[in-house]
Amino acid sequence: MKFTFLGTGAGMPAKERNVTSLSLSFPEYDGELWLFDCGEGTQRQILYTSVKLTKLSVIFVTHLHGDHIFGLPGILGSRSFQGADSPLTLVGPKGLKEYVETSLRLSGTHLYYPITFHEIDSEGEVYENEHFVVTAGELDHGIKSYGYRISEKDQPGELLVDKLVSIGVRPGPIYKEIKEQEQVVLQDGSILKTAPFIGTKRKGRHISILGDTRPCGAALQLARDSDVLVHEATFRGDSARLAHEYHHSTSLQAAEIAQKAGAKVLILSHLSSRYQKREQLALLEEAKEVFKQTYVAHDLWTFELKHQPRK
Amino acid sequence: MKFTFLGTGAGMPAKERNVTSLSLSFPEYDGELWLFDCGEGTQRQILYTSVKLTKLSVIFVTHLHGDHIFGLPGILGSRSFQGADSPLTLVGPKGLKEYVETSLRLSGTHLYYPITFHEIDSEGEVYENEHFVVTAGELDHGIKSYGYRISEKDQPGELLVDKLVSIGVRPGPIYKEIKEQEQVVLQDGSILKTAPFIGTKRKGRHISILGDTRPCGAALQLARDSDVLVHEATFRGDSARLAHEYHHSTSLQAAEIAQKAGAKVLILSHLSSRYQKREQLALLEEAKEVFKQTYVAHDLWTFELKHQPRK
Ligand SMILES: [Zn+2]
Ligand SMILES: [Zn+2]
Repeated sequence: MKFTFLGTGAGMPAKERNVTSLSLSFPEYDGELWLFDCGEGTQRQILYTSVKLTKLSVIFVTHLHGDHIFGLPGILGSRSFQGADSPLTLVGPKGLKEYVETSLRLSGTHLYYPITFHEIDSEGEVYENEHFVVTAGELDHGIKSYGYRISEKDQPGELLVDKLVSIGVRPGPIYKEIKEQEQVVLQDGSILKTAPFIGTKRKGRHISILGDTRPCGAALQLARDSDVLVHEATFRGDSARLAHEYHHSTSLQAAEIAQKAGAKVLILSHLSSRYQKREQLALLEEAKEVFKQTYVAHDLWTFELKHQPRK
Repeated sequence: MKFTFLGTGAGMPAKERNVTSLSLSFPEYDGELWLFDCGEGTQRQILYTSVKLTKLSVIFVTHLHGDHIFGLPGILGSRSFQGADSPLTLVGPKGLKEYVETSLRLSGTHLYYPITFHEIDSEGEVYENEHFVVTAGELDHGIKSYGYRISEKDQPGELLVDKLVSIGVRPGPIYKEIKEQEQVVLQDGSILKTAPFIGTKRKGRHISILGDTRPCGAALQLARDSDVLVHEATFRGDSARLAHEYHHSTSLQAAEIAQKAGAKVLILSHLSSRYQKREQLALLEEAKEVFKQTYVAHDLWTFELKHQPRK
């Protein structure tokens, strides 16, 4: 899966960083594409990436602050204008539906594809498809703000067809039984132990993408054993009081969450525009003292997470 | 007054042209600033100009299509964040208030300045301040779309104080009478004809900024004798049928309006992204055949209109 950071700034757009949006695409699954948040100007950022709106199937919204949602009505309209007719699902806090529907209605925007809204009313599973289950947890941001944990389903080992054929078991309904049972009875009445005829499993990946938040238990829980944790770092480590006051985190606090959660990679985003290049580097270095595998995202940066090896 | 074109494209943002917004500022009047339309991403465009949101006093919205309004909620929030506390007036079609208020409420955006909405219910005067009167006329765009005519008030000639003193008329209440009356009675009972003691007048300027429209009578009327006419040119001259179908104008049609209206300068904006550089040039050249003083706007381009000479 591929992360494309479309906007990595906080509050207001700046020259260097636009407001928040992150695309997560799955080249391994037909190039399907999800969006996490959609600040104003996201659709223009997309013009500088390989992101295709027609491939977009789900938008997860962490919270309704303007810097995370004011790009939604525009992107929905443009997706339609570009000819998409496949359904789109919007997942997010209560109020999302009213915001989107009011904006579309008053602007006379007609969509040529169906939208389904899933407004979250309790923590837990909020989305599932063939390959993934997504759960939401409630963070600490003054306004309802959610973190999402994306869990890839384990892939069972594949049937070793050549090996079966070589012992005279030919394709047929029996193959389904072999896949599902520990042993099966063959046509000639003999019993076959199935394990040697099934390839190695592939464990699913786990990533967590959190909305704005103070450090909190839910963040830790969502981040548990993540292959990638995307966490806000609005402030530097020395501004913990300011961060607390504005319901945000420092880069140090994000690193502590990653470290405690046993995450493998931490990506910091949602940086305040007060920090120039040199300070952004310092913000990163501070975090690395606590959690070595830390990156700081910048606009249009991409990060790839490979499949787990089969074993 | 100074025009700053913040977005000059149609429909969707493109790399070259963002969606529509135009700032009109008045360095001659304390640097006050108005905005005409506010497409998504306008506030980021502003970062590349000298436009100051704290100086913004009125936003005129021509119509509620997304490419003209989806930047509004963000710009209102950022204006507050930047410390503005002076009132802001929003003028536009019915629905503007619901759109803005819903967006601000659901996103938890609190403004630290008062907003006044003026939703237009009939053509005619929609705004007035010390220096200008703004009237709106209804165009032809499928959805309610307005054009605005900004008429500067004539400035009366100034009192020639030195000349009055030289004939023994000293400052006092009499000065007000001299300004307002054709002749006055002085303290010694003599009659003074006032004309020789008043400087030359300055005629006000007239500009017209039109929303999306097919060619129509209202456009012609609003544009009458304009010093500057800003008109959409979504299509080239050869696409009149397409323009009609989508309720837009061609560059040729815009030029015809300017020519018939006796305008002095025509500025074309709101170009379709289908046209590359070479075709944009052709679009301009076509218009110039009909109306010589034509310009085609591009993003971040500024145009200055000086005061009329006193006479
Ligand atoms: Zn927030
Ligand atoms: Zn329009």
